[in-house]
Amino acid sequence: MDNLVEEFNVYRSKMNDKLLADNNLLVKRIFNLDTNAYQEGALNVKTKELLGLVASTVLRCDDCIKYHLETSYKNGVTKEEMMEAMGIATLVGGTIVIPHLRRAYQFWEALENN
Amino acid sequence: MDNLVEEFNVYRSKMNDKLLADNNLLVKRIFNLDTNAYQEGALNVKTKELLGLVASTVLRCDDCIKYHLETSYKNGVTKEEMMEAMGIATLVGGTIVIPHLRRAYQFWEALENN
Amino acid sequence: MDNLVEEFNVYRSKMNDKLLADNNLLVKRIFNLDTNAYQEGALNVKTKELLGLVASTVLRCDDCIKYHLETSYKNGVTKEEMMEAMGIATLVGGTIVIPHLRRAYQFWEALENN
Amino acid sequence: MDNLVEEFNVYRSKMNDKLLADNNLLVKRIFNLDTNAYQEGALNVKTKELLGLVASTVLRCDDCIKYHLETSYKNGVTKEEMMEAMGIATLVGGTIVIPHLRRAYQFWEALENN
Amino acid sequence: MDNLVEEFNVYRSKMNDKLLADNNLLVKRIFNLDTNAYQEGALNVKTKELLGLVASTVLRCDDCIKYHLETSYKNGVTKEEMMEAMGIATLVGGTIVIPHLRRAYQFWEALENN
Amino acid sequence: MDNLVEEFNVYRSKMNDKLLADNNLLVKRIFNLDTNAYQEGALNVKTKELLGLVASTVLRCDDCIKYHLETSYKNGVTKEEMMEAMGIATLVGGTIVIPHLRRAYQFWEALENN
Repeated sequence: MDNLVEEFNVYRSKMNDKLLADNNLLVKRIFNLDTNAYQEGALNVKTKELLGLVASTVLRCDDCIKYHLETSYKNGVTKEEMMEAMGIATLVGGTIVIPHLRRAYQFWEALENN
Repeated sequence: MDNLVEEFNVYRSKMNDKLLADNNLLVKRIFNLDTNAYQEGALNVKTKELLGLVASTVLRCDDCIKYHLETSYKNGVTKEEMMEAMGIATLVGGTIVIPHLRRAYQFWEALENN
Repeated sequence: MDNLVEEFNVYRSKMNDKLLADNNLLVKRIFNLDTNAYQEGALNVKTKELLGLVASTVLRCDDCIKYHLETSYKNGVTKEEMMEAMGIATLVGGTIVIPHLRRAYQFWEALENN
Repeated sequence: MDNLVEEFNVYRSKMNDKLLADNNLLVKRIFNLDTNAYQEGALNVKTKELLGLVASTVLRCDDCIKYHLETSYKNGVTKEEMMEAMGIATLVGGTIVIPHLRRAYQFWEALENN
Repeated sequence: MDNLVEEFNVYRSKMNDKLLADNNLLVKRIFNLDTNAYQEGALNVKTKELLGLVASTVLRCDDCIKYHLETSYKNGVTKEEMMEAMGIATLVGGTIVIPHLRRAYQFWEALENN
Repeated sequence: MDNLVEEFNVYRSKMNDKLLADNNLLVKRIFNLDTNAYQEGALNVKTKELLGLVASTVLRCDDCIKYHLETSYKNGVTKEEMMEAMGIATLVGGTIVIPHLRRAYQFWEALENN
């Protein structure tokens, strides 16, 4: 099951490296913003990761969900907190979010089994 | 080909069971609404399934499309009716719907071959 | 209240005329498809209008919702049927659909008061 | 400026009352879930309101944004916290979010001037 | 009719100034990227403006459409070129794009009458 | 790597043939519009393909992206031009576009290695 996490991270890393090496300035700057946006500020890192998770979920971006599940997990978000955030995302975004919720739950289990 | 249907149903069932066992009240209630929404009312079940199918299609949720294709099929929707509904969805939602239409058509064939 | 209906129809008509006069062939053909898509076929007109209504609602297009509310109303869709369709749209599309549901309900009242 | 807040609340209240009086069970239950979802749980109310705000913003639902801005404001969210949440929403959802950010900022000022 | 252009620009300018004065670094950087992204590169400015216009149109962001219509107009895009771009956007994005096409056409006329 | 291109084309071709053989008039007409929309007009083919690419990217339709990457490639779009178009799409559509950008870059490499 934990292959799910590694496969995702390996592909993501490999392609990010290629994209950054390509030297398109706009893309590089967007990547750079993305790295900085979730750092401690008026809101703490855990809250920001949950905001990123919910935004990714209602926009139904599986890879973005996986990324924020992993960073949330590493920053001490509990399963119960994650599920409350995902519940709000499912309510706001509707039942079309449910397939992403299934895959998110599976990925969270993979994170716990890692 | 009919593995397509079984694979979908098995994964969906397994993850739904886990999500419901997780005991997040909001998620459980949304699942419950989802079960009841398509029952006979002022509109009949067949019409409601087609509404669910078209909503899922324009929102481009493959798993939701599969689910409503299967329930439509089981409730006696014909291929011609399904295609008219999917045609409207493709017109309203645009050519980005076409890849989902391809997969939907393949899934419908799998349902027929089951 | 019934000004709501007339204002919508007058603006829609005026701009459609201008767009069709502009003579862009692709746009004209899309308009033409749109006119024909909701005609009687394997599915009846009423069902097709409800499909158009639900597609428009989950995609949150107020003008499209108004158009299909009016054609639904003219084709004998009852308020109860309309509300069942809109309920499914709100469940599938999530609570972000609610503001559109409010405006749809107001427009339906305007149709009834016309 | 503070008319902005009152106008929004009056229309929202009036139409919600009508929708609930209409007695469509599915719609009533969705409204009910919406009321309960943001209550204290594993996550506190303030965090949940920010999750609702960011979900509404990336899905670009102005009325939903207004609602969560008001509840966030009433629950003690500071302008700086709101802006950090909206910044993440703009990054995740892209520059198409910016027009909603403008209107959100204007609404927040109206809340402060109330 | 040309008030349409001025009203849009005045509100946009006023709120952008407020947002930039607010000093949220992430928001400021996104605004900065937005300014630079449409400058001459491997693709010329006119092509980039049309890309921005089509992206804004399929994502159905009226204010973004207005902005790119104005910059397209100022960079010498003809009405015929604009309509071909908008036609592609309507085909890809579906008939839900049509209400935005109506408003875009009206705004283009306002630009021409300015 | 070049299997990526062939697999995509084979599946797309096979299912398009089935859909066209199904004889739903609306679907056939939409396919027909799709074929004609990208032909030389006031805008040249290369520009139109880039418009189709950006529209597909901000709407996050991987198969549509692949299709327009391939037609762009065949019409002489350079990697640098493609990346500028995709950069604009990522800025307008937000960081949720990034996973599609990764897959697009991989597909472009497959096109080059074909």
